[in-house]
Amino acid sequence: MTKDLRICFVGDSFVNGTGDETKLGWTGRVCAALEASDSDLEVTFYNLGVRRDTSEDIRRRFNQEISARLQAGFDTLVVFSFGVNDTTIENGVLRVDSERSIDNTRALLLEVAEQHPVLMVGPPPIADEEQNNRIQALDTEFAQLCSELNVPYLSVFDGLVCNPVWREEVTSNDGAHPHSAGYSILSERLLSWDVWEALVT
Amino acid sequence: MTKDLRICFVGDSFVNGTGDETKLGWTGRVCAALEASDSDLEVTFYNLGVRRDTSEDIRRRFNQEISARLQAGFDTLVVFSFGVNDTTIENGVLRVDSERSIDNTRALLLEVAEQHPVLMVGPPPIADEEQNNRIQALDTEFAQLCSELNVPYLSVFDGLVCNPVWREEVTSNDGAHPHSAGYSILSERLLSWDVWEALVT
Repeated sequence: MTKDLRICFVGDSFVNGTGDETKLGWTGRVCAALEASDSDLEVTFYNLGVRRDTSEDIRRRFNQEISARLQAGFDTLVVFSFGVNDTTIENGVLRVDSERSIDNTRALLLEVAEQHPVLMVGPPPIADEEQNNRIQALDTEFAQLCSELNVPYLSVFDGLVCNPVWREEVTSNDGAHPHSAGYSILSERLLSWDVWEALVT
Repeated sequence: MTKDLRICFVGDSFVNGTGDETKLGWTGRVCAALEASDSDLEVTFYNLGVRRDTSEDIRRRFNQEISARLQAGFDTLVVFSFGVNDTTIENGVLRVDSERSIDNTRALLLEVAEQHPVLMVGPPPIADEEQNNRIQALDTEFAQLCSELNVPYLSVFDGLVCNPVWREEVTSNDGAHPHSAGYSILSERLLSWDVWEALVT
């Protein structure tokens, strides 16, 4: 029997796939690969990544946007990924401090986990070493929070920060987002995560 | 100078790309092709297509979802496409009658047109001849409404209903949605529309 899995990816520009000339991003690649891996699986792909969104912005919109897409009676999954924008300094001010980031993330994970399986993917590195220090610290805090809440968490920072293709594409593009080769690398990292078998079968 | 065009596609499962194993749909193909056609153009792609959504469902969510993605100061565009689900009979009852469909569509086009350039794409044919009669009638009413409101409207029904690839994919899939070849045909129809030059340059 065909399994009809409906996935909402909720997050920022990296979820949106900004900079990817193919317009698939890592999210579209993951959905296409999951579906191709199993002839009995159909994946409905909802991309709810928004450029510039912090955890604060996402906390305001996640519930309504997910509720409009995922209903009871279907196999559902919500994948969150955000954090880079929280660590940005604008006009001398940090957009969201890490205590508030964790507070937002705890609230949204707890609320969604009542209704759907949930995964979280950590924020990737960009081309700014100072901000990368803050991203890496937030990544560690996210991992601890997810461990506490029993939400599977995939940290991608360490694997990408040394990856020459990721670094080169981010630097030559806008300093934050890669092109399609970078998003492919990120999607492969996601697909090698050991969470999928339990979710798709 | 690079032009950064941000597009929200708002609609139903055909906007979502349901059934397309590549996960691009016609919307992703259109964005990738527009960007590839002009080295000074960057396209941010927001897919707000939701399975089963009628004009009634879309009327409830369009404003918040678009506002979260398109801000003043950027080049923006909203593309609506829906209607097939309005014409579905469920438990003997039409989901949305055509008077209400037009009322919903008028309301959302007027509201969005105050803030963003707007386009509308008509509903495609499915594998049910009776429902296709209702889809075709609604397509004609949408075209009249859009003409009245000066919103560019592209009818795709006639071109697809006789297209052997579209028909074969819809029939062999779920009776409503094609696979990637059907979505490619639809994206090519979209790309041959004469509206793009004014929007992307």
